[in-house]
Amino acid sequence: MKHALVLQSDFGLSDGAVSAMYGVANSVDGTIPIFDITHDIPPYNIWEASYRLLQTMMYWPEGTVFVSVVDPGVGTNRNSVVVQTETNQFIVTPDNGTLTHINKKIGIKKVRTIDENVNRLPKSGASHTFHGRDVYAYTGARLAAGIINYEQVGDELSLDTIVDLPFYEAYLDANQIAGIIDILDVRFGNLWTNVSRELFNKLDVEYGDTCEIIIQHETKPVYENTIIFGKSFAAISIGEPLLYINSLDNIAVAINQGSFANINKIGTGYNWKIMIRKIY
Amino acid sequence: MKHALVLQSDFGLSDGAVSAMYGVANSVDGTIPIFDITHDIPPYNIWEASYRLLQTMMYWPEGTVFVSVVDPGVGTNRNSVVVQTETNQFIVTPDNGTLTHINKKIGIKKVRTIDENVNRLPKSGASHTFHGRDVYAYTGARLAAGIINYEQVGDELSLDTIVDLPFYEAYLDANQIAGIIDILDVRFGNLWTNVSRELFNKLDVEYGDTCEIIIQHETKPVYENTIIFGKSFAAISIGEPLLYINSLDNIAVAINQGSFANINKIGTGYNWKIMIRKIY
Amino acid sequence: MKHALVLQSDFGLSDGAVSAMYGVANSVDGTIPIFDITHDIPPYNIWEASYRLLQTMMYWPEGTVFVSVVDPGVGTNRNSVVVQTETNQFIVTPDNGTLTHINKKIGIKKVRTIDENVNRLPKSGASHTFHGRDVYAYTGARLAAGIINYEQVGDELSLDTIVDLPFYEAYLDANQIAGIIDILDVRFGNLWTNVSRELFNKLDVEYGDTCEIIIQHETKPVYENTIIFGKSFAAISIGEPLLYINSLDNIAVAINQGSFANINKIGTGYNWKIMIRKIY
Repeated sequence: MKHALVLQSDFGLSDGAVSAMYGVANSVDGTIPIFDITHDIPPYNIWEASYRLLQTMMYWPEGTVFVSVVDPGVGTNRNSVVVQTETNQFIVTPDNGTLTHINKKIGIKKVRTIDENVNRLPKSGASHTFHGRDVYAYTGARLAAGIINYEQVGDELSLDTIVDLPFYEAYLDANQIAGIIDILDVRFGNLWTNVSRELFNKLDVEYGDTCEIIIQHETKPVYENTIIFGKSFAAISIGEPLLYINSLDNIAVAINQGSFANINKIGTGYNWKIMIRKIY
Repeated sequence: MKHALVLQSDFGLSDGAVSAMYGVANSVDGTIPIFDITHDIPPYNIWEASYRLLQTMMYWPEGTVFVSVVDPGVGTNRNSVVVQTETNQFIVTPDNGTLTHINKKIGIKKVRTIDENVNRLPKSGASHTFHGRDVYAYTGARLAAGIINYEQVGDELSLDTIVDLPFYEAYLDANQIAGIIDILDVRFGNLWTNVSRELFNKLDVEYGDTCEIIIQHETKPVYENTIIFGKSFAAISIGEPLLYINSLDNIAVAINQGSFANINKIGTGYNWKIMIRKIY
Repeated sequence: MKHALVLQSDFGLSDGAVSAMYGVANSVDGTIPIFDITHDIPPYNIWEASYRLLQTMMYWPEGTVFVSVVDPGVGTNRNSVVVQTETNQFIVTPDNGTLTHINKKIGIKKVRTIDENVNRLPKSGASHTFHGRDVYAYTGARLAAGIINYEQVGDELSLDTIVDLPFYEAYLDANQIAGIIDILDVRFGNLWTNVSRELFNKLDVEYGDTCEIIIQHETKPVYENTIIFGKSFAAISIGEPLLYINSLDNIAVAINQGSFANINKIGTGYNWKIMIRKIY
């Protein structure tokens, strides 16, 4: 059976790079459906590539083959791999940290290195800067089309070889949760944290209750306010801040029809910390 | 028979939101073709979502299922509906004004509320902020795939329940047409008006004739000039303004290879008025 | 057999124009796969449209039908054509220079004018500004679907009628190569030249060797430096410049994880010259 091929990269859509990858895949098998996660990963931002895989993979069916190419180390000796996840999906990628969130949150069953003697676009041997086209799209398409099976990708590696970026779990300390701002909801300027609904529930906060929110950059406080916890934006007026459960089941902070990130000049990453406490 | 699923939103393509919708649809049925109108609707701009449906739907076949998600009221009691148009196409959308242009210009035969007890992504009950993924893409895909028929969407509502945004028709008064600037041709900066070719023809203007164009913001004049009515940009030199019939059969104003909107600082909406009079 | 339809334009994806083209194609035949090169060609930039065809076409299979619409002359008497390339692919386009690179570098076997009496979207006769939708997408889809064969496009024209933009070949003079900056690798700011690997090899430069690079705008020097020739970015540190073979097998200049074009304020086109000499 044929599976969908789903591509992600930091190439943008303004030149021909993504189309070349599509062409390679369509040449392998003209009937496999090809889709995208996004090609707007900020250049070289492996963390965001890793996060977007987590955000989307669970909504695709078993057997789907993902190709993620954020590859600042193209041409170095970083591994090119295909992993099989616990959800029986496949990810074709340079092993440079792109697998961090899937490894931590979903689980990886097996990892195989790509044997470029077999799994490389014929006649592409002279180019050393576009493995996304010559190796990853080509291998992903062959796997999605059933031309090769997973074993034919290449040798199995130990799961210990998978490269993880530094990863922080939120935690409860006394009556306060401490987490980080994982990523932006780019279009709307909402902050998405690494605080899960499950952890947040330990604060016993109900819809309509108010929390104290403190955001720090490194050790410097940049935001401190009380915010209502609501089911959705319907709970508040336009321009008001809201604490809510986002579409990935984590705690997020937003301003109704405004950009929380821009207005409060807040960024993302492990050095952007958020503390949440219920107000009684 | 399976139909195409065509998505529109204000989510942008820079994160994983649209891909999650695609994944939900592909999980429903891996063989339905999925396409886009655009995901670059300015955030919360229901008017533009409504306009883009009008601009594109007529070029898609009967049976096509459109999903439009510009949904500032997600989580409020606005209805989630599927309408059947006079052209026998379907639109899945929050009923918040998104149907305005189709209702006025194409016609809606029937409207049904989405029964979320049946038509909601399994296990998505805890998220209240992403109906685009959990309800609309899921329901649209099932309808496109023929897994449910239109009756199985949910209860029929009265056509009177459909929410329309304020809508203005252009009119002829003495020898002058008064209309509004409906929308921008974003990429090229051309102004698209609500003056139809049919109405414009009442001025008896031929290709090569000249018209006086007055544009007002509220009651303040911001542009006044005489412009040639031409068949296409070939009628004028680079940098010159042109009055022409656009690809939706309405009157538009442009500058050849320049942005009329930027150069003259003109916006869109009901408070941007345009008056057209033939010069003899 | 059905072939893929691959679209390119300068329309952007923010309004409904591209979706209308997709809809026309999907109405012609709901089963042909439709893809994109890019729709972000800068408005009216025929050179870039021509280049992107060269960059991508070779990765798509025989029989693929490309539609390229960068058409500042819509409505003039420029020809609308479909060419058959030496690689047995088809390009549907206004003949305004868009075929330059394919003509010079791949080769064109045949050119036919589009007979709009047959190959035009029914009932679209009144619009004169959107041939991309009414003529090119419609004709391309019918060709890809096998509804018409190539002969049914319209009359054959002489290959001499094809419009070429001015085109410059790089050359070796004494021990120095002189070429131009053809185009940007948009996302990363790398400069792609018209110096082929084959020509460059005549300098006998090995990986790790150093070259003198001079870049001139018209006759004014804007950059002069010695740069290492490397296999990939792994050869240098972050922030260092690199001379390398790009994914089209031409010489390119980059800064590792920086934008060479922005940092050195360098543009593209025939008046941006690059000279390369080996340092001993």
